Amino acid sequence: MVQLLAKEESQDWISIASSIAAELTATAVERDQKAGLPDVEIQLLQESGLLPLVVPQEYGGTGATWAEAFKVIQQLSTADGSIGQLYGNHLNLTALAHVSGTVEQKSRYYRETAEKNLFWANAINTRDTRLKITPDGENFRVDGVKSFGTGVAIADLRVFSALQDGVEVPWLFVIPKDRPGVVSNQDWDNIGQRRTDSDTFTFHDVLVKKDEILGYPHPTDSAFGTFLGIIAQLTKTYIYLGIAEGALAAAKEYTKTQTRAWITSGVDSASKDPYILRHYGEFWAELQAAIALSDRTAAQVQQAWDKGADLTFEERGEVAIAVFSAKALVTRVGLNITNGIFEVTGTRSTATKYGFDRYWRDLRTFTLHDPVDYKLNHIGNWVLNQELPIITQYS
Amino acid sequence: MVQLLAKEESQDWISIASSIAAELTATAVERDQKAGLPDVEIQLLQESGLLPLVVPQEYGGTGATWAEAFKVIQQLSTADGSIGQLYGNHLNLTALAHVSGTVEQKSRYYRETAEKNLFWANAINTRDTRLKITPDGENFRVDGVKSFGTGVAIADLRVFSALQDGVEVPWLFVIPKDRPGVVSNQDWDNIGQRRTDSDTFTFHDVLVKKDEILGYPHPTDSAFGTFLGIIAQLTKTYIYLGIAEGALAAAKEYTKTQTRAWITSGVDSASKDPYILRHYGEFWAELQAAIALSDRTAAQVQQAWDKGADLTFEERGEVAIAVFSAKALVTRVGLNITNGIFEVTGTRSTATKYGFDRYWRDLRTFTLHDPVDYKLNHIGNWVLNQELPIITQYS
Amino acid sequence: MVQLLAKEESQDWISIASSIAAELTATAVERDQKAGLPDVEIQLLQESGLLPLVVPQEYGGTGATWAEAFKVIQQLSTADGSIGQLYGNHLNLTALAHVSGTVEQKSRYYRETAEKNLFWANAINTRDTRLKITPDGENFRVDGVKSFGTGVAIADLRVFSALQDGVEVPWLFVIPKDRPGVVSNQDWDNIGQRRTDSDTFTFHDVLVKKDEILGYPHPTDSAFGTFLGIIAQLTKTYIYLGIAEGALAAAKEYTKTQTRAWITSGVDSASKDPYILRHYGEFWAELQAAIALSDRTAAQVQQAWDKGADLTFEERGEVAIAVFSAKALVTRVGLNITNGIFEVTGTRSTATKYGFDRYWRDLRTFTLHDPVDYKLNHIGNWVLNQELPIITQYS
Amino acid sequence: MVQLLAKEESQDWISIASSIAAELTATAVERDQKAGLPDVEIQLLQESGLLPLVVPQEYGGTGATWAEAFKVIQQLSTADGSIGQLYGNHLNLTALAHVSGTVEQKSRYYRETAEKNLFWANAINTRDTRLKITPDGENFRVDGVKSFGTGVAIADLRVFSALQDGVEVPWLFVIPKDRPGVVSNQDWDNIGQRRTDSDTFTFHDVLVKKDEILGYPHPTDSAFGTFLGIIAQLTKTYIYLGIAEGALAAAKEYTKTQTRAWITSGVDSASKDPYILRHYGEFWAELQAAIALSDRTAAQVQQAWDKGADLTFEERGEVAIAVFSAKALVTRVGLNITNGIFEVTGTRSTATKYGFDRYWRDLRTFTLHDPVDYKLNHIGNWVLNQELPIITQYS
Repeated sequence: MVQLLAKEESQDWISIASSIAAELTATAVERDQKAGLPDVEIQLLQESGLLPLVVPQEYGGTGATWAEAFKVIQQLSTADGSIGQLYGNHLNLTALAHVSGTVEQKSRYYRETAEKNLFWANAINTRDTRLKITPDGENFRVDGVKSFGTGVAIADLRVFSALQDGVEVPWLFVIPKDRPGVVSNQDWDNIGQRRTDSDTFTFHDVLVKKDEILGYPHPTDSAFGTFLGIIAQLTKTYIYLGIAEGALAAAKEYTKTQTRAWITSGVDSASKDPYILRHYGEFWAELQAAIALSDRTAAQVQQAWDKGADLTFEERGEVAIAVFSAKALVTRVGLNITNGIFEVTGTRSTATKYGFDRYWRDLRTFTLHDPVDYKLNHIGNWVLNQELPIITQYS
Repeated sequence: MVQLLAKEESQDWISIASSIAAELTATAVERDQKAGLPDVEIQLLQESGLLPLVVPQEYGGTGATWAEAFKVIQQLSTADGSIGQLYGNHLNLTALAHVSGTVEQKSRYYRETAEKNLFWANAINTRDTRLKITPDGENFRVDGVKSFGTGVAIADLRVFSALQDGVEVPWLFVIPKDRPGVVSNQDWDNIGQRRTDSDTFTFHDVLVKKDEILGYPHPTDSAFGTFLGIIAQLTKTYIYLGIAEGALAAAKEYTKTQTRAWITSGVDSASKDPYILRHYGEFWAELQAAIALSDRTAAQVQQAWDKGADLTFEERGEVAIAVFSAKALVTRVGLNITNGIFEVTGTRSTATKYGFDRYWRDLRTFTLHDPVDYKLNHIGNWVLNQELPIITQYS
Repeated sequence: MVQLLAKEESQDWISIASSIAAELTATAVERDQKAGLPDVEIQLLQESGLLPLVVPQEYGGTGATWAEAFKVIQQLSTADGSIGQLYGNHLNLTALAHVSGTVEQKSRYYRETAEKNLFWANAINTRDTRLKITPDGENFRVDGVKSFGTGVAIADLRVFSALQDGVEVPWLFVIPKDRPGVVSNQDWDNIGQRRTDSDTFTFHDVLVKKDEILGYPHPTDSAFGTFLGIIAQLTKTYIYLGIAEGALAAAKEYTKTQTRAWITSGVDSASKDPYILRHYGEFWAELQAAIALSDRTAAQVQQAWDKGADLTFEERGEVAIAVFSAKALVTRVGLNITNGIFEVTGTRSTATKYGFDRYWRDLRTFTLHDPVDYKLNHIGNWVLNQELPIITQYS
Repeated sequence: MVQLLAKEESQDWISIASSIAAELTATAVERDQKAGLPDVEIQLLQESGLLPLVVPQEYGGTGATWAEAFKVIQQLSTADGSIGQLYGNHLNLTALAHVSGTVEQKSRYYRETAEKNLFWANAINTRDTRLKITPDGENFRVDGVKSFGTGVAIADLRVFSALQDGVEVPWLFVIPKDRPGVVSNQDWDNIGQRRTDSDTFTFHDVLVKKDEILGYPHPTDSAFGTFLGIIAQLTKTYIYLGIAEGALAAAKEYTKTQTRAWITSGVDSASKDPYILRHYGEFWAELQAAIALSDRTAAQVQQAWDKGADLTFEERGEVAIAVFSAKALVTRVGLNITNGIFEVTGTRSTATKYGFDRYWRDLRTFTLHDPVDYKLNHIGNWVLNQELPIITQYS
C-alpha cells in the first residue's frame, strides 16, 4: 500500500506512481474484464498523496508543474489507461477554476482539494447538448442527460456543462457528490478504458448554486481561460504514451520468457530472431520519438501556463499546434505498438489471461476522443497559412 | 434456417454461405462474449449442405473446386472469423486422405463425409510434440497432450499428429468422436477466434487403428502429398479476407447511420467528411487488391491441385510463394482495416454492444498462426535466389 | 531490331514489347540524362508493328483488346516510363474518334492509323484554358498556348483541346504534323518522364477544318463517349506498374551481383541477409497485389468497352471506381518500391551510371498527373454513399 | 558574404549558418546539376568563422558543444545536404585527435585548426581495405586506393585509414593537402550529395610520418576513443533533418504560391485543400518528433562527451542506442517527407528548374551510409537482451 505523504521531488512522485502502477498492473487483466467502478484505483490515488499534485503550494498543494505532472500521468498509465484517464482528468479539473473561475473560486477549489484530498471528475462533453440549466431565483436548476461522465460516480467534486436558453456558451459548474438528483445510468460498457466508468448521467431538477458556476456571470473567453483544453489534450497524449510503454514492457517480458524461436529461424531463442529484434528496435525508436516530442511540448505548455492571464491568443495557438502534433504522433505510434506487439510475442500470447489486447483496446478507444484527422488539419493550416486553430473544447 | 441441399452452382453456395453469415452476424457479439462450443455454428453448417463441398462428385460430394470453396469460406468469415476457421479447416481435412492417405483411405473418407454429412476437425500442430504414439500389436496407442484442437470437441472425425519413437515424421491419424480416452481440457479462452473452441486435448491410452493412420506405413513426402499445407495457408488467407470485409461492412453501416459530423468539419454529415471519405477509399482499394491477389492465387492453387500426383516440387514451391504473398498482403491489409475502422466510426462506436473490436481481435489472433516475417523471408529467398521454401506444416 | 509484322497472339505482342524494352533498357540511363525528342523510341515503335494494336481488324488493325494492350504497355514501361507514356497515350488516342467522333471519323482515323502506321500524340489537358478556337467561314482558327504536349512534336497526328467563346465544353480536334502554325516551345525539362518531350505548344492562327473536330457539331457526353478518360487512367496505372517492375528487376540484378553483405550481418552474401530477403518479399507481395488488382480491373474495363454505346452511366461509374482503386493502389506500391530498392542495393548503387533513381523520378512525376487523394475521395464517396464520380477529363 | 568572426552565442552561429544556407539555397539547383568540387561552399565556410566551432577555447577555438554544433549542421543542411556533410565531417575530424590521438596530437591539431582556419576531410571507410601502409625507416609509405573521400580534394588536412600487414586494426593518419603522391580520381558522380566530391583516391608511395598516425604506436580502443563514431552517426542524423526541413520549406513556398486547387476540391486555393492541409500537418508532426528526438539525443551525446576518458563502455553503448534510434527515425521521416512533398505541390513542381527531387536524392543517397535495418537490430538487441552494440566504424 502506498503511503500518504506529500513529496516534494518529482522523482518521488514518479516513484509513488510507479508503486501504484505496479500494484494496478497485477490486477489489470481482472479489472479490465469486470469493468465497473474504479473504487480500488481511486482509493489508491487518495492514499498516495498524488491528488493535490498541481495545486500550488500557497493553497496547501504539492505545487508540481504540469510538465512534472504529465510524467506522473504517463507512469500511472503504463499500468492501465483507465487509471491514467481518471487521474489525468482529475488533475486538469483541480485547475479548472484557476482558468475559468473567479478569483474566489480558484482559491476555494484549490484549497479544498488540498485540505480534503478531493477527487474530481467531469462530464463536460459540449457536443452532448441535452443537459439544460435554468435560472431559479438566484440559483439554477438542471435537467436532462449528459454522457461520458468518466469517474463521476465516485468523485468528490463533479463538473458538468449545461446549456441555458438564450446563452450561447455552455455553463460549467461544480457540484458535490451528495447533491440530490444526479443519477448515474451505469451504462459504460465499452471495449476499452473499461475501468473509467464513463457513464451517462441523468439530472432530475438538480440545484446548482450561483457560485458553483465557474466564472459566473462573466465566463472567460481569454486565451488563458481556454488554455485548460490544450492541457487536457496533452494530458491525453501522456496517457497514450503510458499505454504504449506498458504494452511494450509487457511484450518484452513475454518474448524473453515465453516466445519460442520459429522453426525456420535458424536461431535457438526468439530473443535472437533477427525480425523480432528489428521489430523491437522499431517500436523503441518510435516510442522514444513520441516521448521526446511530448516532453518538449510539455515544456512549451508549462511556459504558456506560467504566463497566466498574459498569455496571448497567438501564444496559445502556437502551443496548441505543438500539442496537436504530439497527440497525432503519439496516436500513430501507440496504435502501431499496441497492434504490433503480437508479432513479437506469438500465437499463445493471445490467451485471455495475459490480456495483451487491452493495450490496443484502451488506446483505440481513448484516441477516438477527438479525430486525429482534424488535429492534422489544424496543424497544416498553421504551417501553411499561419492560421491558429479555432477554439473549441478540443482545440 | 438454411435448407439442406446439394447445390451445383457456386453462386448458390455463396448464397447459402451468405444466409448463414447473416444468421451468425446477428448473434456474433453475444457468441464472441460467451465463447464456448460452436454448437449452433456447426449445426448450421451441417444443415446447410456445405460440408461435402470439396468432396468430388464421384464420391457423392458437391465437387466444388478449391477456388470456389475459398469464396464460400470468405463469405462465412464476414460473419465471424471463428466459423470461417472451423469450416475452412473442415474443408481442408476432408481432402487430407486424398493427399496423405492411401487410395483406400481417400475413397473411404471422401465417401463417408458425403454420405454421413460429417464435420472434421484437427489438432495437428506439429510444433507441439507432446503427443506420443506407440505400436500395440497391429494397432497403436496414443498418450499425451496436444494443443490448438480447433473444433475438435464437436467434430465427427478428429485428426491429430503424434510422434513415434524412432520415426522422424509425425503420424497423422483420424479417429471418430466416440473413441474413448480423448479429453478436451476446455481451456480455450483467447482474445480472438473465441468460438473456435481450440482446446488442448489429453489422450489416455487411446486406441488408433493401423488404417486410421494416414498413408501408413508409407507416409507421403511427395510434392502433392504435402500440398494441403499450402491450401491450408490460402484457406487462412480467405478467412482473413472475410474478417476484413465484415469489418468494413459493419463500419460503413455505422458511419452512415450513427457517426456525427465533426464540429470543425464544415459538413453536416459524417458521410460527407473528406477525411472519412478518403479513409473509406483507402480501405476499399486495399481490400480490393487483397481480394484480387487472393483470387488470382486461388486459380494457381487450383491448377496445381488438378495436377495431383504429377505436381512437381518446383510447381508446388512456386504456388507456395504465391500463397505466401497473398497471406502476407492480406494480413497487412486486414490489420490495417480492422484497426482503422474506428477512425471512421468514432468514439461511441466503441460500445461493447457493437463488438467492433472483435474483427481486430479475431484477425490479430489468427494471423499469428505462423509469422508473416518468415513468409516474406521465403518469398524474398525465391525472388532473389530462386530457392523454394523448405517444406513444413506451414510452408 | 524488331520486325514489322502484325501478330495475332498476345504472347507475341508481349514478346515484341519485351524486345523493345530490352533494347531501350540498355540506353535508358543515357537517354534519361539527355532527355530531348524520343526519336529512336518512336521509330522502334513504328517498326514494331505495335502502333495499330487496338485498331479493330475490320479497319486493318491488330484488333487486340484493351486488356491485352495494357500488358504490352506494362512491358514497355519496365524499360522506361517515357516510352510507356508515349505508347499508352498513342493507343488511347487511336480510339478517340471511336468514342468521341462521328461514325465517319471513327472509320477514317482507325483506317489511316493502320494503313499508314501512324503515331498519335496530344495536348488535351483541359485544365489549361489558354488555347482558343474561333469559327472562320466553315472552318476554324486556333490561337494560344497549350501545355503538356507529350510526344506531340514527333507525332503524325496531333490532338488538342481548345475553347470556343460561348461554348462550354472544349472542342477536341486532330491535325496532321505538317499543319502550319503549331510551334513546340521545347520547354520540357522535368525530373522524370524526361523522354516524353511534353512541351508547351504555341498556335499562330492555325487552321482546323470542321471535320477535324471530333464529333462536331454534336460533342458526345454519353457514358461511352467519356469512357476513354477511364481507359486513360488505367493506362497510366499500367505504366506505373511497369516502372515498379523494372525497378525491382534492376535492383534484384544489382543485389545479386554487387551488394556486399553488411559487416554485422553474420552472412557471407547480401542475398542471404535476412532483412534484404524480407524487403524483397515485401516488394514482391505488394507488386503482385498491384498487378492482380490491375488485371482484374482491366477485365472490367474491357467488358465495359465491349458494351459500346450501350454502356450506362452506372456501369461507367462503377468501372471508374475500380480503375481509381487500381491507380491509387499501384501509386502507393510503386512509390514504395522505387524508393525502397536502395535499402537492398546499398550505398554504391547510387552511382549515376546505374540510374536507379530514374524509376522513382519517373513514377513520382507521372503519378502526379491527377491527385490520388481525390481518387480515394471518389472511391469513398461511392463506397459510403453510392455516388458515382462526376465526369471530368480525369474521372 | 558572411564575415569572419568568432561568435560566442550559439544563436549567432545559427545566424551565420542561416546566412550561408540562404546563399547556398539560391544556387543549389545549379550546383546540384553540375556537381564537381565544392569550392564556393568551402570558401564560404572558411570565411564564416564556423570551422573551429568545436575546437575548445583553450586552443583558440570557438568552444561550442556538440549539441550546439549539431544545430549549425542542421541549419546548413537545409540549403543542401552536401554542405551539411562536408561541414559535419569537418567538425567530427577536428576532434579526431582528441579521441584517437596522443595528447600532443590533440593539442597540435586543435590549435592548428583554429589558428590557420583549416578545413578537414577524410576517406576513412574501413570497409574498403585496398589502402596499405608499410613501415619505411621510422616513417611509413602508403600505396593503393581508397573510396568515398568526401571533400578530400579540397581539404587542408586529409584523414585516411590504411592497413598494415600483421596489424589488425587499420591506422588512421592525417596528411596535409600538399603531400605528394595522392591523386583524386575525380570519379564521384552519384544521384545525390553531388557536391561532396566523394572521389576515390589513389596513393603512389605516399610518405606518412610517424607522428601523423593518430595514437601511434598505441591505438585507442577505449570507450571514449571510439566515441567519435557515435558522434558521426548523430552528425549524419542532423544532416538528414536539415534536408527534410529544407524540403518542407521549399514545398510550402511552392504550394502557397504555385499549386492550383484541384478541380473537384470545392476550394478556391490549394492552401485550403483539406488533403493538402492534412499532409502538411502530418509532415510537420513527424518532423517535430524527429527534431525532438535528435535534440534529446544530442544532450545525451554531449553528456557522454563531457565524461572524456571516464566514459564507460556501458555509457557509450547506451548513448549509441539513443543515437541509432534518432538516426533510424529521422531516416524514415525524412524519406517520407522528401518523397511526399510532391503530393502537396503537384505536377508542375516536377520541373527541373525547381530541383525538388534533390532533397530525396540527397537523403536517399546519404541514408544508405550504413543500413538502418542493422541500427534497428542493435536497438532491439539492447531493448530485449540488454546487449550493447559491438563497436565498429558505424556503431
